[in-house]
Amino acid sequence: MPTVDLNCDMGESFGAWTLGNDEALLPFITSANIACGFHAGDPGVMKRTVRAALRHGVALGAHPGLPDLVGFGRRNLDISAEEAFDMTVYQLGALHAVAQAEGGRLHHLKPHGALYNMAATNAALAQAIAEAVYKVQPELVLYGLANSELTRAGEQLGLRTAHEVFADRTYQANGILTPRRQPDALITDADQAIAQVLQMVQTGTVRSQQGTEVALRADTVCLHGDGAHALEFARRLHQELRAAGVQLQAAGPAVAP
Amino acid sequence: MPTVDLNCDMGESFGAWTLGNDEALLPFITSANIACGFHAGDPGVMKRTVRAALRHGVALGAHPGLPDLVGFGRRNLDISAEEAFDMTVYQLGALHAVAQAEGGRLHHLKPHGALYNMAATNAALAQAIAEAVYKVQPELVLYGLANSELTRAGEQLGLRTAHEVFADRTYQANGILTPRRQPDALITDADQAIAQVLQMVQTGTVRSQQGTEVALRADTVCLHGDGAHALEFARRLHQELRAAGVQLQAAGPAVAP
Amino acid sequence: MPTVDLNCDMGESFGAWTLGNDEALLPFITSANIACGFHAGDPGVMKRTVRAALRHGVALGAHPGLPDLVGFGRRNLDISAEEAFDMTVYQLGALHAVAQAEGGRLHHLKPHGALYNMAATNAALAQAIAEAVYKVQPELVLYGLANSELTRAGEQLGLRTAHEVFADRTYQANGILTPRRQPDALITDADQAIAQVLQMVQTGTVRSQQGTEVALRADTVCLHGDGAHALEFARRLHQELRAAGVQLQAAGPAVAP
Amino acid sequence: MPTVDLNCDMGESFGAWTLGNDEALLPFITSANIACGFHAGDPGVMKRTVRAALRHGVALGAHPGLPDLVGFGRRNLDISAEEAFDMTVYQLGALHAVAQAEGGRLHHLKPHGALYNMAATNAALAQAIAEAVYKVQPELVLYGLANSELTRAGEQLGLRTAHEVFADRTYQANGILTPRRQPDALITDADQAIAQVLQMVQTGTVRSQQGTEVALRADTVCLHGDGAHALEFARRLHQELRAAGVQLQAAGPAVAP
Repeated sequence: MPTVDLNCDMGESFGAWTLGNDEALLPFITSANIACGFHAGDPGVMKRTVRAALRHGVALGAHPGLPDLVGFGRRNLDISAEEAFDMTVYQLGALHAVAQAEGGRLHHLKPHGALYNMAATNAALAQAIAEAVYKVQPELVLYGLANSELTRAGEQLGLRTAHEVFADRTYQANGILTPRRQPDALITDADQAIAQVLQMVQTGTVRSQQGTEVALRADTVCLHGDGAHALEFARRLHQELRAAGVQLQAAGPAVAP
Repeated sequence: MPTVDLNCDMGESFGAWTLGNDEALLPFITSANIACGFHAGDPGVMKRTVRAALRHGVALGAHPGLPDLVGFGRRNLDISAEEAFDMTVYQLGALHAVAQAEGGRLHHLKPHGALYNMAATNAALAQAIAEAVYKVQPELVLYGLANSELTRAGEQLGLRTAHEVFADRTYQANGILTPRRQPDALITDADQAIAQVLQMVQTGTVRSQQGTEVALRADTVCLHGDGAHALEFARRLHQELRAAGVQLQAAGPAVAP
Repeated sequence: MPTVDLNCDMGESFGAWTLGNDEALLPFITSANIACGFHAGDPGVMKRTVRAALRHGVALGAHPGLPDLVGFGRRNLDISAEEAFDMTVYQLGALHAVAQAEGGRLHHLKPHGALYNMAATNAALAQAIAEAVYKVQPELVLYGLANSELTRAGEQLGLRTAHEVFADRTYQANGILTPRRQPDALITDADQAIAQVLQMVQTGTVRSQQGTEVALRADTVCLHGDGAHALEFARRLHQELRAAGVQLQAAGPAVAP
Repeated sequence: MPTVDLNCDMGESFGAWTLGNDEALLPFITSANIACGFHAGDPGVMKRTVRAALRHGVALGAHPGLPDLVGFGRRNLDISAEEAFDMTVYQLGALHAVAQAEGGRLHHLKPHGALYNMAATNAALAQAIAEAVYKVQPELVLYGLANSELTRAGEQLGLRTAHEVFADRTYQANGILTPRRQPDALITDADQAIAQVLQMVQTGTVRSQQGTEVALRADTVCLHGDGAHALEFARRLHQELRAAGVQLQAAGPAVAP
């Protein structure tokens, strides 16, 4: 039976500020990437997000980001590989303790925003992040862009990895995402986005913008928490995958709760 | 054989800024309280401090503080008990992961500055901090002011605690520190400070400002890392305690390194 | 003709996080207290808030807060008077420059949250904040709790002050607010709140919880930006004050735009 | 009479952390670039630095940086031009108010670290920074790398600019700095560094690594505040320039103190 994970960023509130729609989305996802205080999240938000995810049986993931609160971790910052390692260790440990205090345990780690993007193409940063996971919690699944430097670095260290795909992004003939600056980068039609995910999950391929079928390992699909139609899309994707006989579960072997 | 622990705050640098004299002090102490990023310390500083402490066989302790970098965690902040719990869990977890990545493990937790002072007298904050330790790493030793709400809260939860005394502070007949605003609060003479520690460790008492001998449990002595004579005093105290046959080791049962 | 100012905190978004309902409230207020980056607001948010206020002809005020982003400046922090002075100067200058770049100028300063509350009763902090205004922009109106240490400090320095009153809080026979911990501290009925403001503005008195009429200078009324009924209440108060012939304008002599 | 300005970064302490040797360097420089709280400096440090500079008759400059305290503003951050504008306005205003409260006024603005470097080659960022100065205090002198996008942007807006040169860096035949990654980028010999400055100031040229004499406008020389020999070098350069009849004064027309 084909299987896939639906992941979503969670716990992106901070102090007096609320962001996202976590409670409404949790029923439709199987793994939550929880902000760890650098780009979003604070210790209290992290605790409440862990509790909510545990209540819904959703796998807990650390979602470390760049130390750029005002930029929400979305702006590239020229960090060294050692800094990437250090900030990943720190944030992973912080969320691990929060989870432990709530009786839960972590399942995966997925870098956030600019850290995710930089680690997809920068081998040194990818290696540093993978090593951080390896040295602190080698049993975690490392989530990264499919066929990226990050998944490659994790696999070289013997980590379990989850290759992430996008419902709302188009792909090129070489299997990489169409860059955002190109006009055809986004899929705005929900039917088309769902059809793309179904093809990825059922056949392990995607139809590229060049019209070819490209092999693509789709372990986990990234769902967005914001935007007008995010919740409705999550609900539909969840429903259509189930209807098509796809099993929804967190990527990698199950972790006992 | 009488035994005591000598602890000192460490890892108080941040980014481009250096503070303290960690490498010089490490040979004379038995446990290090390592800043966790809220009042001082950053992920890289934490790593280097853990490494240095491990090299010297000094026990590793988490030293969580208030989120007040510019005030160095020294200004009272009106936090709730829940906020104290959350920030302790977060910082403890972060340092735990840093230690783990370096092949070490934590031995104790001691709150920093204003958090330490508030937890000494505020039972709700003390309870929250003790519970954070209990829920995340109940094997840790909780360091607190001798006979304070913090040690009391730890003991009620079944945690091992270390009662902390000061070489350079005077005591009142009821066993509490002379408040800093009083002119006789500080001991500035090194001989007198060392004699006070020796009495505490050898007899379990201290001579109060009222002239009485007061019972005082002295598990660990707080050494300062800054100040002109800090290093010289640490060296002398270490030497004179050893000469008097006092065993120096981290408070509580040893933790396998 | 009786005159009063309606002020509201604005610009409390930060980075990716949105807070408040500034655009909707601006038509009903006469002065905006704009967060300056310490408890909320960032340089971009400040600029957009200044622009919006200028568009609505609403007077611009600096709203300096404690450096406590995660606590939204609402938690008392044990700062020195010098620190209060320094942080007020800094934040005032930052907003002044933002206003200048947009072709506007500042009209007033009102401390935020815990800084406001501490300055209401702590004469040294009040003095420090008033001096910061005096040394940087002595033409500004200093907004403070009616009959507080803050308005007193401003008046002693010769600053123009605006005594602030609350529609939704009850008062004691000595003219101070009923402390929040008392069950009768809040007025939840909108009609009663509006009647209280009308009495304050038209007669310069308020009916205390002890049943007496107390003299109270009401230069400006604090409106809330959050809460379910904030916008509706602002609209009604604005309308009923106008219907009663009360002139609505920013406190103190008008500043040429 | 040939004239040049000697500038140095100042006020780079933060909270409990001290950095630099400001008091010792002030006698040898003519303009101070004062950190504004984003990469270093806090409101209290800024005030004390302004006071010290005023005492020595050294011109005050704003030294805005990226919001990267832990990285000291030295890591490139992918900000938009609008963000560069906003953060420059904010920091300039903050320091302006601090100076005003101390009875001083600002003379110039020089971006710090990565912001300086990015603005040297990125025309959009350079334009944004120049516009921030233009809209807030158009009388300021804009300091930037000689012949960079930043000085160009300032000149197009009609700002006075100061072209900055380096004593300890070599130049290429096209007048730009030898990139740091090249082995011959740095001049480590003090005599050679001083000779280079003298040539720049007296002849308006520099000898390039290719052996040619290149025209170079040298309005201001950057002195370093850190490093073992920084103070000694500043003293010598100051002395030898004076001995050679070079007038030392802040760049651009004098500002009445």
